[in-house]
Amino acid sequence: MNSFLLSPDVLDALKNIVGENRIKTDVDSLENWGKDHTKYFSPHASVIVFPSSTEQVQAIVKLANYHGVAITPSGGRTGLSGGAVAYHGEIVISLDKMNQVLDFFPADRMVRIQAGVVTQQLQDYAQEQGLYYPVDFASAGSSQLGGNIATNAGGIKVIKYGMTRNWILGLTVVSGKGDILRLNKGMIKNATGYALHHLFIGGEGTLGIVTEVEIRLDRQPQDLQVFVLAVPDFESVMPIMHAFRNEIDLTAFEFFNDLAMQKVLDHGLVARPFETSCPFYVLLEFEAPYEPLVDKAMQIFEHCMEQGWVLDGVMSQSLEQAQSLWRLREDISESISAFTPYKNDISVLISYVPDFIAEIDSIVAENYPDFETCWFGHIGDGNLHLNILKPENLSNQDFFAKCEIVNSYVFEVVNKFDGSISAEHGVGMTKKPYLEFSRSEQEIEYMKALKKVFDPNLIMNPGKLLDF
Amino acid sequence: MNSFLLSPDVLDALKNIVGENRIKTDVDSLENWGKDHTKYFSPHASVIVFPSSTEQVQAIVKLANYHGVAITPSGGRTGLSGGAVAYHGEIVISLDKMNQVLDFFPADRMVRIQAGVVTQQLQDYAQEQGLYYPVDFASAGSSQLGGNIATNAGGIKVIKYGMTRNWILGLTVVSGKGDILRLNKGMIKNATGYALHHLFIGGEGTLGIVTEVEIRLDRQPQDLQVFVLAVPDFESVMPIMHAFRNEIDLTAFEFFNDLAMQKVLDHGLVARPFETSCPFYVLLEFEAPYEPLVDKAMQIFEHCMEQGWVLDGVMSQSLEQAQSLWRLREDISESISAFTPYKNDISVLISYVPDFIAEIDSIVAENYPDFETCWFGHIGDGNLHLNILKPENLSNQDFFAKCEIVNSYVFEVVNKFDGSISAEHGVGMTKKPYLEFSRSEQEIEYMKALKKVFDPNLIMNPGKLLDF
Repeated sequence: MNSFLLSPDVLDALKNIVGENRIKTDVDSLENWGKDHTKYFSPHASVIVFPSSTEQVQAIVKLANYHGVAITPSGGRTGLSGGAVAYHGEIVISLDKMNQVLDFFPADRMVRIQAGVVTQQLQDYAQEQGLYYPVDFASAGSSQLGGNIATNAGGIKVIKYGMTRNWILGLTVVSGKGDILRLNKGMIKNATGYALHHLFIGGEGTLGIVTEVEIRLDRQPQDLQVFVLAVPDFESVMPIMHAFRNEIDLTAFEFFNDLAMQKVLDHGLVARPFETSCPFYVLLEFEAPYEPLVDKAMQIFEHCMEQGWVLDGVMSQSLEQAQSLWRLREDISESISAFTPYKNDISVLISYVPDFIAEIDSIVAENYPDFETCWFGHIGDGNLHLNILKPENLSNQDFFAKCEIVNSYVFEVVNKFDGSISAEHGVGMTKKPYLEFSRSEQEIEYMKALKKVFDPNLIMNPGKLLDF
Repeated sequence: MNSFLLSPDVLDALKNIVGENRIKTDVDSLENWGKDHTKYFSPHASVIVFPSSTEQVQAIVKLANYHGVAITPSGGRTGLSGGAVAYHGEIVISLDKMNQVLDFFPADRMVRIQAGVVTQQLQDYAQEQGLYYPVDFASAGSSQLGGNIATNAGGIKVIKYGMTRNWILGLTVVSGKGDILRLNKGMIKNATGYALHHLFIGGEGTLGIVTEVEIRLDRQPQDLQVFVLAVPDFESVMPIMHAFRNEIDLTAFEFFNDLAMQKVLDHGLVARPFETSCPFYVLLEFEAPYEPLVDKAMQIFEHCMEQGWVLDGVMSQSLEQAQSLWRLREDISESISAFTPYKNDISVLISYVPDFIAEIDSIVAENYPDFETCWFGHIGDGNLHLNILKPENLSNQDFFAKCEIVNSYVFEVVNKFDGSISAEHGVGMTKKPYLEFSRSEQEIEYMKALKKVFDPNLIMNPGKLLDF
C-alpha cells in the first residue's frame, strides 16, 4: 500500500481531523517521517499526520479502524530496531506537534507533558525548576518521551536511577481500539488492579499510542565526580565495580574497550585523558557533596591500583572536566557511525557478565577475525553494546549478511545465560526474528493475545515486535 | 461448594500431587487458611493444599481447570481487603511450604526466593548478606512475598524506596491456564516486549500464582536519624515536608493525629516523646553518615519552629531511641485493633493532599460526629489511612452499615481528586464495589479481557478485584 492507494476519502477525513496544514504526503516527508535511525529498511508511509491533542489521535485511530488502515506512531525517530519504520503504507502519526509541558506539580516533583516532548527539553525544564530528569543517553537531543516510553529507554544512569519505566507515574493512551485511557493518573500508590500502563511502557506502539505522560523528577545531583580508569584486562572490571559500589552510591559505571576510545580520539573532539593505553577503560561517577566521600573514593582508587586492577586514572577537578571525561564514553556511537556498525545490545545478570563476555569474545574472535569490534556498555546493569565495524572493502550487503549469521551464535549464548537479546533498544523489526531467544513460546502467545485485547483489528504498528 | 462437595477423585488427585500430609480438610484448618486479616467474611474453603514446587502448583492448576474448581492463592493472610478469602468452596493453595531462599547473586545484589518467604525473613536474610530489603510495614513478620507482590505492597519507606514493584526483577508464575512462565529472569534491562510480570504485580492472584521471585536488594542504610515533631495544624505538615525534602533525602515522612498517638500511649508499650500535645505529629527519617547532614537537619528543624509549623520535637540520639520513636507510628494499627476500626486506605497527588484532607475532614465531621477518627499515613506518598473507631455501644452490623454509606461520600471525593480508593491494600472483595471510583469503565473492561487471556476458565481467585 502506498500514498496514492490511500483513498481520497481517508485523506479528506484526516484533514478534517487535524487540519489541512498538519498533513504531509510529499515524497521527502514520507521518507523523513517514515523511518527511524535504523538503516536497513526503506520506508513506505502513506501519509504523515501531526495531531495536536489526544482527541485528534483518537479520531485518527477510529478512522484507521473503520477503514482497516495501519498506523505507525512516530516520535524522535532515533530508534535502532526499526520500531518506528512505516513499512507497509501505514498512516504515520507524528507526535512532533504535541510537545508541550502541560502542568507542573512541585509538591509531587512531577510534570505532566505531551508525549512529543523531547528528552532534552524535559531535562532542561526540570533543571529550570531546580529538579532533574535522570534518564539520559546519546540521542536525548532528539528522542521524544513517547518513544522513550515505547522502548523503556535506559542509558547511562540506570545503575542509580533505573529505566524510563521507573519515572512514569501515569500515561494517557489511545488504545488500538480507539479508547482514551488515563492510566494511574500520577499516583505513587494505587493498588486498584492491573497496572495497564506498564504494558504500554516497552510496548513499542503495538497496543496503542501514548499521548500524555505524568513523569516524576528527582532532586538535582550534587557535586558529581567522574573517574576514568585504565584497566589491563576484563577480569579486573568487575572487582573495580564492587570495590567502589560497596562503599559509594554510584550514579554511573560504564566501560569501553581501547578501540572505542581510539575511535573517539580519532574523531578529534576530545583529548586523551592520560598517556597509559590499556585494553579497557572504566568511567564511573558519584555524588560527593561531602569531603570524606572524595577521600573514600581516592582510597578505593589506590586499592584498585595496588591490586593491579587499574593501571592509571584521572578524577575530574571541575564540572567542565567531568563533562569532557563523559564525552569519551558518550561520543562512541557518533564516532563509529561512519563505519556502518552492526549493533548488538545484549544483557545478562551482572553475576554472569565475566563468563558471558568470554564466550561472546571467542565467537567474535572466531567469526570476525578481520573485523574491528567496539565493546562498550552499561556494565553496572549487565548491558553490553557489541558493535562490529564494517571493513572498508566489504559491501554493506555482504557485511550485514555475515553479521546476521553470527547474530544467531551470539543470541544462543544470550539464551544460555538467560539474558536479553535487546536490553534497551527494543525488538521492532531487527530483533523480531530472534525474540524466542529471550521470550518463551508461551510468553509470545500471551503477548499476541494481549495485543488482540487492545488492538483487535491489528492496526497498531503491525509487524513490529510480533508477527502481526 | 464446600469440602464435602469436592469429589473424592479430586481430593485423591490432589494427594497424588502434593502428598497425603500436605493436604488439610479439617474444620479448623479450613477456617484458618481460608481467610485473610479481613473481619467481614466467613471463609468457605474446600481444601487446603501445601505444594512444595512450581511444578506441583502447575499440576494443581491444571487439575482445577479440568474439574472446573476455583483456586484461592494464600500467603501470610495479612491482607485487609478480603483478597485471600476462600469464599465459594475454593481449593486454597497455601505457599507456606515454599519458603526457601533459592539463590543469592552478590554482584547483582539480588536473591531468588520462593514466593512463600516471609517479608521479615527476606529482610533478615538481606541483613546477613550485608544488604537491605527496604519494603517494610507492620505485618512484615507474617506477610509473604507472594502476597506483597499480589497487592504491590507499600509501607513506611516508599518515599525513598518505592513499592514492592520497584524491587521485583523477575517472577516465575503459573498462569490460570496452567502455564509456567519465567518472566524477566532477574534482568535490569530487557526490552523484549510486554512486561508481563508487571501484570502479576498487583494482580491479586486473579491471573495466576507467583511461585518464585527474583528480588533486588539495596545497600544497608547508614546512621538513620529519626525526628518526631509536634505540629499545630494540618496546614503546617506539607511545608515541613518540603523544608526537609528540599535539602535532605528522606527515607520516611509519616504523619498521625493526636488520637492515634493517644491510642498508642494508652496501649502502654511506648513512652510519650515530649510533653507538648498537638493535633498532629510528623515522623521523619534520613541517613546521616556525615556530620553536616545532622547540622543541616537541625537548621531546618529550627526554621520550622520559627515559622510556627512545629511546636516541639525530638531527634533520636541512638538506634534504640530511633526504634522507639518509630513505634509511635508503627504500633498504631495494633493499638486500635481492639476498637474494630473501619479502615480506609486512600491516596491522591501530594499536591492535592491539603484540599483533599479538608474535604474528607468535613465529611467525617458531618457523618461521624460521635465517632473517634484516627488519621495516619504515608503523607510523603499522598497515602492516607483513615480509621473510624467503633463506639462501644454500637453493634458491629450497625457500625459497618454506617461506614459503608459514608464510604461512598469519601470515594466521591477521591474520584474528584483523581485519587485511588486503595493505595496499598488492594481491591479484593471489600473495595470491589467502589472500583469505578478509581478506574474507568473502559479500564475495567480491559482488565476483564486480560483476565480471560491468562485464566480463560475463570478459576483464579474468582470474585476478587473483578466480578468474575
